[in-house]
Amino acid sequence: MTPEEFRAAGHELIDWIADHRARVPDLPVAAQVRPGEVRAALPIRAPEAPEPFADVLADLDRVVVPGVTQTQHPGFYGWFPSNASLASVLGDIASGGVGALGITWQSAPALTEVEQVVTDWLRELCGLSPQWRGAIQDTASTACLVAMLAARERASDGSEHRGGLQSLDAPLVAYTSPQAHSSVPKAALLAGFGADNLRLVDVDPVTYAMDPAALRRAMAEDAAAGRTPAVVVAAVGTTGTTAMDPVPAIVEVAREHGAWVHVDAAMAGSAMLLPEMAHLFAGVDDADSLAWNPHKWMGTILDTSLLYVRDVDHLVSVMSTTPSYLRASTDAEVVQYKDWGIPLGRRFRALKLWFHLRLDGVEAIRARLRRDLENARWLAGQVEAEPGWRVLAPVELQTVCIRHEPVGPDGEPLDGDALDAHTLAWVDAVNDSGRAFLGASRLDGRWMVRVSIGAEATERADVEALWSLVRGAAASAGA
Amino acid sequence: MTPEEFRAAGHELIDWIADHRARVPDLPVAAQVRPGEVRAALPIRAPEAPEPFADVLADLDRVVVPGVTQTQHPGFYGWFPSNASLASVLGDIASGGVGALGITWQSAPALTEVEQVVTDWLRELCGLSPQWRGAIQDTASTACLVAMLAARERASDGSEHRGGLQSLDAPLVAYTSPQAHSSVPKAALLAGFGADNLRLVDVDPVTYAMDPAALRRAMAEDAAAGRTPAVVVAAVGTTGTTAMDPVPAIVEVAREHGAWVHVDAAMAGSAMLLPEMAHLFAGVDDADSLAWNPHKWMGTILDTSLLYVRDVDHLVSVMSTTPSYLRASTDAEVVQYKDWGIPLGRRFRALKLWFHLRLDGVEAIRARLRRDLENARWLAGQVEAEPGWRVLAPVELQTVCIRHEPVGPDGEPLDGDALDAHTLAWVDAVNDSGRAFLGASRLDGRWMVRVSIGAEATERADVEALWSLVRGAAASAGA
Repeated sequence: MTPEEFRAAGHELIDWIADHRARVPDLPVAAQVRPGEVRAALPIRAPEAPEPFADVLADLDRVVVPGVTQTQHPGFYGWFPSNASLASVLGDIASGGVGALGITWQSAPALTEVEQVVTDWLRELCGLSPQWRGAIQDTASTACLVAMLAARERASDGSEHRGGLQSLDAPLVAYTSPQAHSSVPKAALLAGFGADNLRLVDVDPVTYAMDPAALRRAMAEDAAAGRTPAVVVAAVGTTGTTAMDPVPAIVEVAREHGAWVHVDAAMAGSAMLLPEMAHLFAGVDDADSLAWNPHKWMGTILDTSLLYVRDVDHLVSVMSTTPSYLRASTDAEVVQYKDWGIPLGRRFRALKLWFHLRLDGVEAIRARLRRDLENARWLAGQVEAEPGWRVLAPVELQTVCIRHEPVGPDGEPLDGDALDAHTLAWVDAVNDSGRAFLGASRLDGRWMVRVSIGAEATERADVEALWSLVRGAAASAGA
Repeated sequence: MTPEEFRAAGHELIDWIADHRARVPDLPVAAQVRPGEVRAALPIRAPEAPEPFADVLADLDRVVVPGVTQTQHPGFYGWFPSNASLASVLGDIASGGVGALGITWQSAPALTEVEQVVTDWLRELCGLSPQWRGAIQDTASTACLVAMLAARERASDGSEHRGGLQSLDAPLVAYTSPQAHSSVPKAALLAGFGADNLRLVDVDPVTYAMDPAALRRAMAEDAAAGRTPAVVVAAVGTTGTTAMDPVPAIVEVAREHGAWVHVDAAMAGSAMLLPEMAHLFAGVDDADSLAWNPHKWMGTILDTSLLYVRDVDHLVSVMSTTPSYLRASTDAEVVQYKDWGIPLGRRFRALKLWFHLRLDGVEAIRARLRRDLENARWLAGQVEAEPGWRVLAPVELQTVCIRHEPVGPDGEPLDGDALDAHTLAWVDAVNDSGRAFLGASRLDGRWMVRVSIGAEATERADVEALWSLVRGAAASAGA
């Protein structure tokens, strides 16, 4: 395709995107297809000859749009916000247009240095000390694995450079809570710790935050048995309920054993931009690594996850490999991001953050985050005030965990499997309406519903409409 | 930013990209900045207030363009091709515009199913049997780590679900050649094998391909010593010289020990699209996993690496974690790509391949690959016919490894450090000219120059001009 052909098609595509984003509020929120339906709509072989751009563009409407959940919809309250701010989309488009290859600093100095600049901008905005250094990873899952590998190598004194994890006499142990994101156990398993050496430390029954006394007991028990406490992953904002693990106490306990502390703030990290929320992040500066995802609430389009570490030299010692064809005389003066993570090749993802921060400005981003926090507090107040409804966990941020617990046919409050069936019935009814999308999740063995506020488009009126929709669905679902 | 603001800025950006790509041939190929220069050109704090789009756009020209090596330039022969075909850039733009979140099939069925369709298109085009299944990873480094983890868990009978790698009595051993890409040792180390359990198997001194007899000896020795041969990474097209490890023989040896065979065809995989090159890929269908990067020679913009495996169920058993908030009633009927790799969240990267294959068509892609193969053969012929010049390794694909070995002041052919200095002098002169960019690399302990042909824009006339430039630079560098 020539630049002129690209120009013509590109203008059509920009119009399509602008039109699409303008009509998202009128679309059903949840994807509208059955398993296999998209595949069946497509040919089984690749085309030998070029197809007209109009046909490809038409397939976005025919196949793609009905086949995705509209995370940019004002009625999207599922999982966590997955905002794709249009300013960051422009940065992503620029990245594609520049077509650079980041493998070393030398291959694309600007790719490296803009990433240094924007991660440092965000470091300062988040209140982290200057010794912290950040790099963009694809997701917090990968960031957690990288942190886990760094922790493994610190605890084993660089075993990868000798006999590996398999050569250790004393097994390394990892700690997190049962409320941790699924990527945390996954990272521990992939890093080779093994399920037997992963401790799910008890949480407080009301706040769902990790109990540091239980962590202290677990670490002491492992140490007494000749095992090595190596890493704790603390969640600042768990996935289920945005519970806040007590980082200062966790860091204190971990230090007694020389264990690494990784803070998973994938969702909540955006709140670090708000000075009035600083109390939630107390102690984080004393941890060893921190992951947060601007691609969630803050809204820099996926995939933009940040991993910050305090000891970059250690990270590099774990991740570095420098063959001759990648050596250069400027090596000592520059950062080589290939040694800060798993992949060698790197997109110019920093442009997404650069465009987003510059075109929207930090103050507008803060204002939006504050709006969402207020909307969550408003909704929590409504739910608490409504008979038969409960807020199940502290509303630390923008996610409200709720359940309708009406009186059953026997005159007693519904519970057990009947309560689960009721919960799933009304949440399905809400989702089937197309007007909103909520996620169901299990808490203390029972289903509950997470209302995760924070789509860029969601205003108070949308949350009011949701609350009305939810009450109606629950009432219709009966009891 | 509103859709209408996006529309206006988007049109400007499309024009900028079309103009930029049209003028790339007039730019110097190598990045033109010194360490720290880009950082110094940018403010140290993020802007509180929005900046005009014109300012951000102007910074692409002021800061970004001079700060990247122009991999789309017809004079780019560095590393490996890193093509960003404009058809695939359109697909990437569409991905941003749709703004979908891939965490489960349910979150974005089309994101999953288009990926199934395009990876299956390419599977068939590459001649792999139908039991192979593919997924998009960011890079071949990550794909190699995933393969290594799958191999580790097969060899240890799923140790991650028990005591982990650290609980094994018999250490697992990984095998590759000294010519393997740096990501292979890195993956072995990150997977926990340890440097002591990584064998660099001897290569043939002429072809630089792994010697299967040496592999057999190494595996037998490890097995006799009570260690477990777990995985071999064979390169089909090494990074240094595009050497072809003999996969059929390697598979045969590996099978005797039940070891996993991962084929790294990151660069060469694109040649699988050419039926006449099928001989290079003999035996690959009998391996366990295969990585290749359409984001290299084929030209689907970074990051588009494909990992194919024969036993998906095993891969899923290694990678799966399914918490309650990600469970759904349709789970049995669909593919969950989160269980095929490390990250949970997923961009709609399949659109890049979908647009690229549809808008360019497979036949045109094949024609371009054939053009590059012919250009490489032509250049190799010129170099071989020129006194004082050598082609140092078989030209299996589009990369020609060359050295100028003139007669020195003492009347003898230049060798040793003097030869190295000469090589680096002339390659620097070529790169400093701005008209071409070549990579130097070490082979048998001495510097040589890789001419990796395959930028989308590179025609025969460009290669002719390069050969003239190279001879001139070598002559001027003296001897």
